[in-house]
Amino acid sequence: MRALDRGWDILKGGGPAVTACEQAIIELEDEPIFDAGVGSHLNREGKVQLDAILMDGATLKSGAVVAVERIRNPIRLARLVLEKSEHMLLAGYGAEQFALEQGLEFCNPEDLITEREAEIWSSRSGAANFGTVGAVALDVNGNLASGTSTGGTLYKYPGRVGDSALIGCGCYADNESSAVSSTGHGESIMKVVLAKTASDLVAAGKPAQAAAEAVIALMSRRTAGRGGLILLDRHGRVGTAFSTSNMAYAYRTATASGLFDIGP
Amino acid sequence: MRALDRGWDILKGGGPAVTACEQAIIELEDEPIFDAGVGSHLNREGKVQLDAILMDGATLKSGAVVAVERIRNPIRLARLVLEKSEHMLLAGYGAEQFALEQGLEFCNPEDLITEREAEIWSSRSGAANFGTVGAVALDVNGNLASGTSTGGTLYKYPGRVGDSALIGCGCYADNESSAVSSTGHGESIMKVVLAKTASDLVAAGKPAQAAAEAVIALMSRRTAGRGGLILLDRHGRVGTAFSTSNMAYAYRTATASGLFDIGP
Repeated sequence: MRALDRGWDILKGGGPAVTACEQAIIELEDEPIFDAGVGSHLNREGKVQLDAILMDGATLKSGAVVAVERIRNPIRLARLVLEKSEHMLLAGYGAEQFALEQGLEFCNPEDLITEREAEIWSSRSGAANFGTVGAVALDVNGNLASGTSTGGTLYKYPGRVGDSALIGCGCYADNESSAVSSTGHGESIMKVVLAKTASDLVAAGKPAQAAAEAVIALMSRRTAGRGGLILLDRHGRVGTAFSTSNMAYAYRTATASGLFDIGP
Repeated sequence: MRALDRGWDILKGGGPAVTACEQAIIELEDEPIFDAGVGSHLNREGKVQLDAILMDGATLKSGAVVAVERIRNPIRLARLVLEKSEHMLLAGYGAEQFALEQGLEFCNPEDLITEREAEIWSSRSGAANFGTVGAVALDVNGNLASGTSTGGTLYKYPGRVGDSALIGCGCYADNESSAVSSTGHGESIMKVVLAKTASDLVAAGKPAQAAAEAVIALMSRRTAGRGGLILLDRHGRVGTAFSTSNMAYAYRTATASGLFDIGP
């Protein structure tokens, strides 16, 4: 709810959808319970490596970073790539070099590691716990935006990049159709290029909720993995669907709001 | 033609489409005229950083690496990720660590730099010269595959990743529709998720050539960038289109072949 409020405040004040997504995601990255920013899963080597993306549906430009280790809020760095770089995706030390150039301070990599995640890693007792965060927004000017941020999978191989920060997979936004952010088993989401596929279904005339359900059904048919997505069309209609055991999400529109954490 | 022969030999012998793509691309990476493997463009820091992907249309699994500096044939490493990793994309030092684990030897980063590229970089006289390489193949078992390999853009920011090695953007393969490899301005190709979009047009019933042309028209409508693609549908029908000034390509089928380097 804090993330929802923080994003909504931007939109209510007439601010841009990209800023609303960025601000909501900063709140989620800073909350240790999620697998993004502080509290992310540790990889095989016991390190946190983060991926994030922010996409502007007005221009189709995105900014994304993958495999960064010293950035507390990778969504802030994704925003800087979106606005200050001619490129759209920066990996590893190049992304960190760009952060420094843009005045974003490094954190100590250990600041990202919580006691809980260190314990899960040490005991190798981790459940397949997805906790990628994301946001979609539509602003008063009719611009759509979406963003996604993740620490990736527990015990992942160093340098492993999942769907989250890949345009069309973990995130897509197009003012002509919809904004999408996805979560779940990264490699399976990548196989069906989930976010772009969902957005194309909306462009082809499917209602938001039907499009969200159709793409999860497609993912189940073509892959062995599970996932979920939040989707917002250009008219502000919401769609959500998931084949994972649960997916916590909240939404607010001019006329309605809700908070859901649907478990088995 | 050497690349075509090398790929065709695999297919003629009943070998898999993924191997045909890999072998054709190795030939192209080893040819210094292309912007892939040896002879790649240098980035802002005067280094070569390579991206490559190989995708299997039977499983929708891909293997990809980005921002690697010590791998002579990144498509070989992409093949190893495809076959030996639970993941689909590895970045930077993690990708290189995986290469070592899998027995792929490092090259000296300077071995990738040709005199011609060093001269272009030093004189800052480089034209916007795209030279990404790719291949698509259909084997006797009806399996489609595609692959793409690149050195990226001249003077790119360290860590910059373009479309080439991103599933759905620079490459896509699906036995139910088609195999696609794209080239051109990476960020613009990413904006429209070109390869998956083309593949979806084929799945929706568009003939191969019409799908290739439609997706380039879409790219021209939605972005300021130029690009091209090669496409092969599940019946072996070829589609090619480009909005760049030229795109060299060759193809062979059971009944026809051709080599094209169409310039202005």
